Amino acid sequence: MLCVAVAIFATNVAVADVFQKGSLIEYNRQDVAGGKGTLYGQFAFKRDAALKDQAIKEIGWMTLQPGDSIGMHKHETNEDAYIIVSGEGTFKDNDGKEYAVKAGDVTIARKGQSHALTNTGKEPLVFLDVIAEQ
Amino acid sequence: MLCVAVAIFATNVAVADVFQKGSLIEYNRQDVAGGKGTLYGQFAFKRDAALKDQAIKEIGWMTLQPGDSIGMHKHETNEDAYIIVSGEGTFKDNDGKEYAVKAGDVTIARKGQSHALTNTGKEPLVFLDVIAEQ
Repeated sequence: MLCVAVAIFATNVAVADVFQKGSLIEYNRQDVAGGKGTLYGQFAFKRDAALKDQAIKEIGWMTLQPGDSIGMHKHETNEDAYIIVSGEGTFKDNDGKEYAVKAGDVTIARKGQSHALTNTGKEPLVFLDVIAEQ
Repeated sequence: MLCVAVAIFATNVAVADVFQKGSLIEYNRQDVAGGKGTLYGQFAFKRDAALKDQAIKEIGWMTLQPGDSIGMHKHETNEDAYIIVSGEGTFKDNDGKEYAVKAGDVTIARKGQSHALTNTGKEPLVFLDVIAEQ
């Protein structure tokens, strides 16, 4: 019976194509990758439920409060885009170079690259997280 | 000399990982997929410059003015997420079912699926477009 239940869940994940704001999956994490504070997440779908033949594995609305951060971490098998929607932060790229980022800026860690993000402003830093894998 | 110049450009596309708002590529299209009006786009990178081993092929900030639309079209080989940032619209999914969408909503057309989007509100409909392919 457990196998049947899991199969039904996986089918739902595969076919759903509209994820309304009120139905997003809340998933918050602490001190991500050696960073500080809480990474608040509201996900349409998460990588742990993605199917092998789906390129986009995860889409989430993320928030870091002022001073909070995601530490430097490497994407071994997938790519991760952070797209800044509001607030101000510092993005660190694969070479350790720091960039001031704000609304409208797009960043990406390709396969094998590392990145980090810190809210260096006074408002919440809101960004989209999109993970894809070939 | 032309070949050398092209090679340098392709390398830049491959390694860049921060795309600041002011440097995004402006690319506007008319009556997309039988839709109406102008689809305004500001792209970090576009699918025509993506490398084969990159999963995320395109990221763009898109705007449809009130009444304007992207017509129904099929994604034969890739996936396309529309993530609503502001405004109000109607999203049509692969089965032709219509959904009212607004800020925070996430939609996706998986490989082989079709979708369409219309601005049904009074403000610009701003959304992110993310295309990925395995």
